Amino acid sequence: MESTAPHTLALTVAYRGAAFSGFARQPDQLTVQGELEHALATVLHRPAETTCAGRTDAGVHARGQVVSFDVTASELDELDARDVNRERFASFRRSLNAITHEDISVRAVSQKEAGFSARFDATAREYRYFLAVDEVPPQFTRDFTWHVGHLDADAMRRASRCLIGEQDFKSFCRASSAVDKPTCRNLMEVEFEQTELCGENLLVVRVVGSSFLHSMVRTIVGTLVEVGRARRPEQWVAEALAACDRTAAGECAPAQGLVFWEVRYDG
Amino acid sequence: MESTAPHTLALTVAYRGAAFSGFARQPDQLTVQGELEHALATVLHRPAETTCAGRTDAGVHARGQVVSFDVTASELDELDARDVNRERFASFRRSLNAITHEDISVRAVSQKEAGFSARFDATAREYRYFLAVDEVPPQFTRDFTWHVGHLDADAMRRASRCLIGEQDFKSFCRASSAVDKPTCRNLMEVEFEQTELCGENLLVVRVVGSSFLHSMVRTIVGTLVEVGRARRPEQWVAEALAACDRTAAGECAPAQGLVFWEVRYDG
Repeated sequence: MESTAPHTLALTVAYRGAAFSGFARQPDQLTVQGELEHALATVLHRPAETTCAGRTDAGVHARGQVVSFDVTASELDELDARDVNRERFASFRRSLNAITHEDISVRAVSQKEAGFSARFDATAREYRYFLAVDEVPPQFTRDFTWHVGHLDADAMRRASRCLIGEQDFKSFCRASSAVDKPTCRNLMEVEFEQTELCGENLLVVRVVGSSFLHSMVRTIVGTLVEVGRARRPEQWVAEALAACDRTAAGECAPAQGLVFWEVRYDG
Repeated sequence: MESTAPHTLALTVAYRGAAFSGFARQPDQLTVQGELEHALATVLHRPAETTCAGRTDAGVHARGQVVSFDVTASELDELDARDVNRERFASFRRSLNAITHEDISVRAVSQKEAGFSARFDATAREYRYFLAVDEVPPQFTRDFTWHVGHLDADAMRRASRCLIGEQDFKSFCRASSAVDKPTCRNLMEVEFEQTELCGENLLVVRVVGSSFLHSMVRTIVGTLVEVGRARRPEQWVAEALAACDRTAAGECAPAQGLVFWEVRYDG
């Protein structure tokens, strides 16, 4: 009987979002979850169901998405038998990378406590949004940025302060997702970093929260960019938040600038 | 008469190499030079000939390629008239970027001394080669790296020292290009930097020289990678150099990892 007791594994996954209809499995669509579950099913010789830390939208990238799934004790033994005297799960990881779409990389495999959930055990999620701030269009960073040109980063930083804390973010949630659902969230950090890559200047917006509403990070960024472009005053962000109405905030920033950066778990 | 006296302008140009059959103009091929000269001809309403600091091969990228060309005094007056009270050449630059292929960005336009040559006045050229050194394939840096997995960077650094200075680099020059031509060059720096981008570990090889032979940077990198993979001993690089024979050195590293980084001019 012991050989069928469940154990839980987690994958750390990076992907380029452009090729996929988002993370979540959908019939007849190329999705990250569909690719991962197909690869797991191929290696484990049985259907596999996964849970992810955050269901990213179509076009959104990930550096550190976390995906959990259960294996039986005998499956775990079999996986371990492949890597005697080597890094644990190295050949399992290599098999998954060989099967999945080339825009997905399983970066790490680890064993968690039985029953671990990539979604429910997460205590914080970090997203980074990359803004290309030169007048000239970016080349090297093009696939992972939104090209907006010059921004007043200081104004954006000041305007963002009102967003920190536990608040109702209904104004920053896709309207169709906010119907009859709680829209309070705890936003822990919004930080700005200017950096340069291959001669291209970027403003990176780092957003950390316990969890996020649908399109929340991108709507925060789209709203702050309006301030950075001086199309709206700084206090407009606080007014948009207080309105609890999606039409009060700015546009949702394009998916291609957003990277699901990292998930934090206690302990 | 004064209105036809020649003045010299220079463009600083970035491009992604994958789409082009190299920098140099060729009939019926998409090339960076062809695109730039077409854009200049469109804006200046006459054929334009350009000189570049380095003719990069098909697939090689550039961050700071420099391209020079002459304009008449009246053409210069006309370009200046477009940007009264603004950054000089801003609308000229914008026009060029609107006409050229999207994988080319004219980053800057500047006036040089009359007769300046992007090629002959260059005192040093810097290339950077990006090696992806994780076992897992890179995603974010994929288009600009060669994925080689783990390398012994210290061994590569030690092995590279023999290359510094004025020497005959015939072993590191494409054989067909070395026939009856001088193959001595002054290599000023070969440096290694470990860096991380979106969770992907890179080893960046920075190569600076007065000028380079055909495929020289890529052959140096391909040779050093053999040492980094422990397929060859460190002293093999010095032996390859001394042999003055292309077959004595390693393979030419793939074009996609190479970026023509910067050109230096005295004064």
